[in-house]
Amino acid sequence: MTNLAQLSSDSITAVSDKLQADYDEFKGRGLKLDLTRGKPSAAQLDLSAALLSLPGEKDYVAEGAVDCRNYGGLQGLAEVQRLFAGMMGAPAEQVVAANNSSLALMHDTIVYALLKGTCDSQAPWSKQGEIAFLCPVPGYDRHFTICQDYGIRMIRVALTEDGPDMDEVERLVAADASIKGMWCVPKYSNPTGTVYSDATVERLAAMKTAAPDFRLFWDNAYAVHHLTDEAIEIANILDLCARHAHPNRAFVFASTSKITLPGSGLALFAGSTDNVKWFLARLVPRTIGPDKINHLRHARFLREPAAIPQLMSKHRALIAPKFQKVLEIFHEKLADIPGVRWTEPKGGYFISLEVPEGCARRVIALAKDAGVVLTPAGATHPYGKDPEDRIIRIAPTFPALAEVAQAAEGVAICVLLAAAEKFRMLQPA
Amino acid sequence: MTNLAQLSSDSITAVSDKLQADYDEFKGRGLKLDLTRGKPSAAQLDLSAALLSLPGEKDYVAEGAVDCRNYGGLQGLAEVQRLFAGMMGAPAEQVVAANNSSLALMHDTIVYALLKGTCDSQAPWSKQGEIAFLCPVPGYDRHFTICQDYGIRMIRVALTEDGPDMDEVERLVAADASIKGMWCVPKYSNPTGTVYSDATVERLAAMKTAAPDFRLFWDNAYAVHHLTDEAIEIANILDLCARHAHPNRAFVFASTSKITLPGSGLALFAGSTDNVKWFLARLVPRTIGPDKINHLRHARFLREPAAIPQLMSKHRALIAPKFQKVLEIFHEKLADIPGVRWTEPKGGYFISLEVPEGCARRVIALAKDAGVVLTPAGATHPYGKDPEDRIIRIAPTFPALAEVAQAAEGVAICVLLAAAEKFRMLQPA
Repeated sequence: MTNLAQLSSDSITAVSDKLQADYDEFKGRGLKLDLTRGKPSAAQLDLSAALLSLPGEKDYVAEGAVDCRNYGGLQGLAEVQRLFAGMMGAPAEQVVAANNSSLALMHDTIVYALLKGTCDSQAPWSKQGEIAFLCPVPGYDRHFTICQDYGIRMIRVALTEDGPDMDEVERLVAADASIKGMWCVPKYSNPTGTVYSDATVERLAAMKTAAPDFRLFWDNAYAVHHLTDEAIEIANILDLCARHAHPNRAFVFASTSKITLPGSGLALFAGSTDNVKWFLARLVPRTIGPDKINHLRHARFLREPAAIPQLMSKHRALIAPKFQKVLEIFHEKLADIPGVRWTEPKGGYFISLEVPEGCARRVIALAKDAGVVLTPAGATHPYGKDPEDRIIRIAPTFPALAEVAQAAEGVAICVLLAAAEKFRMLQPA
Repeated sequence: MTNLAQLSSDSITAVSDKLQADYDEFKGRGLKLDLTRGKPSAAQLDLSAALLSLPGEKDYVAEGAVDCRNYGGLQGLAEVQRLFAGMMGAPAEQVVAANNSSLALMHDTIVYALLKGTCDSQAPWSKQGEIAFLCPVPGYDRHFTICQDYGIRMIRVALTEDGPDMDEVERLVAADASIKGMWCVPKYSNPTGTVYSDATVERLAAMKTAAPDFRLFWDNAYAVHHLTDEAIEIANILDLCARHAHPNRAFVFASTSKITLPGSGLALFAGSTDNVKWFLARLVPRTIGPDKINHLRHARFLREPAAIPQLMSKHRALIAPKFQKVLEIFHEKLADIPGVRWTEPKGGYFISLEVPEGCARRVIALAKDAGVVLTPAGATHPYGKDPEDRIIRIAPTFPALAEVAQAAEGVAICVLLAAAEKFRMLQPA
């Protein structure tokens, strides 16, 4: 594919006609494909089939003679705390194991901070005037939805190859005490696959913040979700925060949603001793305890920390070919198109596709008309607004490989057509 | 036992000495018994043993081809909505099935109202100055903890045999727009076993409230938890609220904690169409959905609504004898003691024991020293303060029958000793 922007008016018309024909042909296939959400496929869920009959009728007693069927145990089973301590980067006693949704833990943590304040707050966040969160973009729509819902102002910061633009982050948090939090997906970030460098993690831990109760919402959703042989480890945020005399700065979140089962996995919280104490105290009025049978089920299924990477390598075997297929098709069809590029993630659940400015909505609309549903344009930005209308999130894990290939081909055709439309408009008449 | 208050100084000394000897003997047994919390016994949990291996490795697809293992389904499985519609007194589509804790649903509903307001609020409750809840007393400590934690003023109202003192309730809510809510355990109330009469339920539905966004927190925790052949049905609060033109007044809560398993049951919410719409909209930022595998597990285990009373009759067979034993011992030992009386509940999980004014703390301290742990004095009242220091909550379900008998005997001895101490002090020297 030659550079569309450099073509003469005549040639671009011819190319556009060809692309329109390609698109019409693709649309004519009557496909119905969905690349919207980061959902595991049925084959991935089958890897945890054993969970569906565990723990078994006679197995309900956990360590410490805990009858998992009954009430109690606010912090979760000791087995589960230990199982995930490594993944959480915290001692087992600083891990809280909850029900099935880490999003719920993040939401609730914000709600508690709003209504009661953190353990370092002089007043509840809701009594401190308008507050703000830093939002690296592109990022995860559901993080932004929580902020929007509770009227927390979102301040965009750019995501570089090493993580958030730290010069900008340091400048903002030092100057503005209303900035109380920052969303971070530090490894294989949604949707770019970005991995925060050790230097970035250390700067986040060390930086001076005007707000004494500033918190990093450290959503380590893809902690063990590698797509290559390189099992990337990032710096330990809790250790670094402690070393830089901000022991309570990070709230760490993760879940087994994409390790075992998304609907019925376990969500996890970790933090400093004071943060854990605070979190548990906030939980007391809310619940008598989590679903400990599901904790036991996971403890019996996974048995030991070493089982986690073993299970994840089976996931990788199922999904890495889907990522490769998308990248292969993008490379083949979109390699030389100006303004088009994409990430080649080493883990996580997404590819981020950048299209020429002003084209993302058009690509998504074209794809939809042709039967390929993509995440809405702007979803990766606060308030659903991508100011350059450039970012498209591609989620290749759920459909079968053949469908992923078809969908990627369709997306590529839509990108080419949208780009051609744009560049034709830019040509002299 | 003669009337302690009428004895002469000499005789009361003799009686006291005898009681002290009884107490010392009981204490000497070195028992370790716990009557604190309304927990099912292991034998009750065994009734739901099948849940521990359900749904089975190949069973994960629910109605509408829902793969329960994956994300989604904010309102819960259709099977579960239907299964509990009757118990919730609402059409299935107005039932929301969640995770394992109805307390969490109540807590979250209050949090949502505080931060966002109800569907009838002109502003979030937290922006309307100090707000208040009516709290029938004695009541459930965990309800009161939520209010206390979020700074919601608690106004006590007396609980009569027919439910809350409705003259008082009507007077208060009509006059004071800061009263936004009221806790109600309408059937087999915790801890008195009180059942709200049809007239009470109708007056709650019909009464004029100064606050347009007033809500009944209708915690129907013991909806199907009968202890006698009389399976009491109360009036339908949702129907009556609708009939009296206050369709959104009641938030209805229940769970299977004391039907299947307390740690890993299902919590349920029901309300008017507008309340359900509001509740689901509030859930969207919080979670992608509940643990649907646990929904499926319950749907497979219970199969149809008729299974619920069948299962509950097995619970009754296990726990009714424990209640009978406590009542029998109280009757035998405490029948004629002035200022001592107790409830004889037809359902639920508690007996409420009233002791002479100023004696509850003393009884509980004596019992503790003798190895019988009771719920802390005052727990049944807002702010943990029983102004007359009279109410003791007895929870006989968890220990084995023989232990319940020993514990009840111990409690009776402590009541007699505390009463004797009190009346001796009242005698002329």
